[in-house]
Amino acid sequence: MRILGIDPGLRTLGWGVITAQGTRLSHVANGLCHSDGDDLGERLLSLHNQVSEVIDAFQPDQAAIEQTFVNKDGAGTLKLGQARGVALLTLAKAGLPVGEYAPNRVKKTVVGVGHAEKEQVLHMVKLQLPGCAPKGADAADALAIAICHAYYGGTQQRQLKEVRA
Amino acid sequence: MRILGIDPGLRTLGWGVITAQGTRLSHVANGLCHSDGDDLGERLLSLHNQVSEVIDAFQPDQAAIEQTFVNKDGAGTLKLGQARGVALLTLAKAGLPVGEYAPNRVKKTVVGVGHAEKEQVLHMVKLQLPGCAPKGADAADALAIAICHAYYGGTQQRQLKEVRA
Repeated sequence: MRILGIDPGLRTLGWGVITAQGTRLSHVANGLCHSDGDDLGERLLSLHNQVSEVIDAFQPDQAAIEQTFVNKDGAGTLKLGQARGVALLTLAKAGLPVGEYAPNRVKKTVVGVGHAEKEQVLHMVKLQLPGCAPKGADAADALAIAICHAYYGGTQQRQLKEVRA
Repeated sequence: MRILGIDPGLRTLGWGVITAQGTRLSHVANGLCHSDGDDLGERLLSLHNQVSEVIDAFQPDQAAIEQTFVNKDGAGTLKLGQARGVALLTLAKAGLPVGEYAPNRVKKTVVGVGHAEKEQVLHMVKLQLPGCAPKGADAADALAIAICHAYYGGTQQRQLKEVRA
């Protein structure tokens, strides 16, 4: 199974693609999508186009995205929400099932503790995906989200089916 | 000039189309896009498809959207942000220039005061667009946003050009 992980952000969106055969993971690709400029619509369109290109290029079977941390910075939450909405739309348009994971769960899965530093995440992502060189912290986070989905995706979807049944 | 106004929301997104010839306004159409269900991606895709259909059907030249009010409810801000991001993306994808207006400015333009009730907005929208029957409060708000753009859109774009020049 090929999994696309997304770490959403308006200025920089990280992505990472891995394959999972049971618990055997391997790295496929990772990168960053940047959006600059004054016009918010143009920036969101640019993110949408870049994520669509990643999906076309690497043909994932499933996707995973970080659950957004809502904090007291309302303007920051709104910006992140707009970028996250566009990412989710792009994944839904491509027909990909999407798992959502809280940041703490991602860190706990990859590093073993919920409050890990960026450096630790980067280190453990490299250990678990030999040969992988993340193109930045956001790309490493995206790979960590994909790893988390490799472990929990099946469980999450079984639970969803049970809840809906 | 034909203007599409959007009042963004995840559960209900209001839209309204008007034509403006100078200060002479007339109503074209209005409505609501609904999104239900558990899957956030599916809901955002449904909103995107519905707004795209409105653009295809009514072929606006420009669009206007409400600036989101950031409040203390972080989860609400995030939901609204995701819906707003998808609306902005849809407008950008259609190549429409978009004006953004604060809720207070929209109310002041349409009703004369910044803190008007929904009822007043509805009443004044009906007065300014004879024959128009908004399909709900969100559709009336979307028409009010389009009216605001009819008055200020030119100014806003001149200012933007000046700022960028």
